[in-house]
Amino acid sequence: MFDVIKSDLEVLEEGLLAAVSSENDLVTEVGTHLVTSGGKRIRPALCLLSAHGGPSFELSHVLPLAEALELIHTASLVHDDVIDEADTRRGAETANARWGNQVAILSGDYIFARAFHLIANQGYGEYISMRLAELVCNLSVGEIIQDHAVYQASRGMADYYDRIQKKTADFLEICCELGALVGGASPEAAAKLAAYGHDIGMAFQITDDLLDIEQTSEKIGKPAGNDIRQGIVTLPVIRALETSPAADELRAIVTDMDMTDEMVARALDIVKSTDAVEFAKQKADEYLAHAKAVLPEDLPDEIREAYIMVADFIGDRDF
Amino acid sequence: MFDVIKSDLEVLEEGLLAAVSSENDLVTEVGTHLVTSGGKRIRPALCLLSAHGGPSFELSHVLPLAEALELIHTASLVHDDVIDEADTRRGAETANARWGNQVAILSGDYIFARAFHLIANQGYGEYISMRLAELVCNLSVGEIIQDHAVYQASRGMADYYDRIQKKTADFLEICCELGALVGGASPEAAAKLAAYGHDIGMAFQITDDLLDIEQTSEKIGKPAGNDIRQGIVTLPVIRALETSPAADELRAIVTDMDMTDEMVARALDIVKSTDAVEFAKQKADEYLAHAKAVLPEDLPDEIREAYIMVADFIGDRDF
Repeated sequence: MFDVIKSDLEVLEEGLLAAVSSENDLVTEVGTHLVTSGGKRIRPALCLLSAHGGPSFELSHVLPLAEALELIHTASLVHDDVIDEADTRRGAETANARWGNQVAILSGDYIFARAFHLIANQGYGEYISMRLAELVCNLSVGEIIQDHAVYQASRGMADYYDRIQKKTADFLEICCELGALVGGASPEAAAKLAAYGHDIGMAFQITDDLLDIEQTSEKIGKPAGNDIRQGIVTLPVIRALETSPAADELRAIVTDMDMTDEMVARALDIVKSTDAVEFAKQKADEYLAHAKAVLPEDLPDEIREAYIMVADFIGDRDF
Repeated sequence: MFDVIKSDLEVLEEGLLAAVSSENDLVTEVGTHLVTSGGKRIRPALCLLSAHGGPSFELSHVLPLAEALELIHTASLVHDDVIDEADTRRGAETANARWGNQVAILSGDYIFARAFHLIANQGYGEYISMRLAELVCNLSVGEIIQDHAVYQASRGMADYYDRIQKKTADFLEICCELGALVGGASPEAAAKLAAYGHDIGMAFQITDDLLDIEQTSEKIGKPAGNDIRQGIVTLPVIRALETSPAADELRAIVTDMDMTDEMVARALDIVKSTDAVEFAKQKADEYLAHAKAVLPEDLPDEIREAYIMVADFIGDRDF
């Protein structure tokens, strides 16, 4: 997908390993485990791609930013796993499962701080530090909001879009915007790439939420309907609550903190018997179409093609 | 103690409240609880004092830095309380006890990020951002090291000094150094104040560790010998292990993860029957004497007196 930045991403891997290494062996071990546990590097890839399109692109100059973005994502997942008491992520053992909550919480703090350390002395200017700090603020607040909105079917579409913006779209937006700025893009070009990042972020999260409804358990490696079970009301469910003749039954299930497996299966059936899946797919497609349309006009061809491929990849996502 | 910066500290309180406020009511509530739960403001006080001594002191310019230092301390305590499963701190309910681990962990992340956000656009320059990120890295690593060194009496003096430097002295050093720099002090003056901060930090932690040995449970509001019980081997214990005729018995107790209250009491008796308490007091006094001696010569009188008072206060600490 990312041929144009393939070699950049290889250098990035080394940088990530260097960034999490410490005088303390345990800290290095935990950090190494975390950054080598199969992240897809979507965030640094978008950052690097956006920098490439700029007139003053220099790999060594943008790499610390790309690494910092991946480290912030990593640290945030480490803390999420402690909160969710998760044992595995992407097939690998979580830090809390292997080393306990104490090491996991502190390693997350360490990795957050390493991200801010990485970008501190690169001459990026204050705006970039401010945006990254804002990002971590918003991720934390977004997570608190999501976890306090569970089992509340009353929250509608607007609330859903607000939540996924904080959870995913803001992050991808920042990756594109800051990458563009560090690559020397004009404020106008950076703003367009920021809009692109926002839109694919929205599509990415809608698609991710759809997978939880659509796919069989075997395919996604976790039980289907997991969001419903956890009380997280996503777009297809919200659509079904608005349109299904069985809306009352669905509402009773998704707001029940003690729902059984049978109830989850029934909820999935109700959602699938409406146009909710199609509706959500169409929303994702609208975001992707908008993402492609908003790209700056004067991008080098290979960069533009990469952006289009990323958007198409998100639309076709099927795993 | 801090007359010269009394009014500054009042303005600081408002700034701290503003810094933790969020569009989300719960986040604001947690942040407000945390910053109003009786912190002694030692860190921002040292920062403000150090800035006052500089030729270009301006309160509004240094305040965000002072606030960020207190926020970093606060966030770090919030995560410590999650790790220790603590119910109270300074007599107030901990965030984890009141709102659960999820809110406490994410609020800690939020407050860390707010600190970096506060200092991002003040024109402080990259050195200050870098030092603060380094500080958070070192605090996290220091905590991991401490928790993995428990019940290990084999670790001697050098290990102890290294630990308390990471835990306390580095932090107070940074408060003085960065405050001085933002106040326009020369690099030489900033380095001297950094040394002062380091030394009172070492004395502060030694004195704190001594309280755990010396005082009655009623006076310090937690059981005496608490460190011993948790497997944290402090200076008086290390000294007693080196000098007591009952060193073997003491070693057997402090390395026993299942020690009883009687064993803790016996360990305290052994330590107190040696010169360990006097030895530790003398070490603290040496650090304080050095702290006073290293102060820059051309400080305004009232500032110098405040520094001396802080050092004396730490030496006399008796609560």
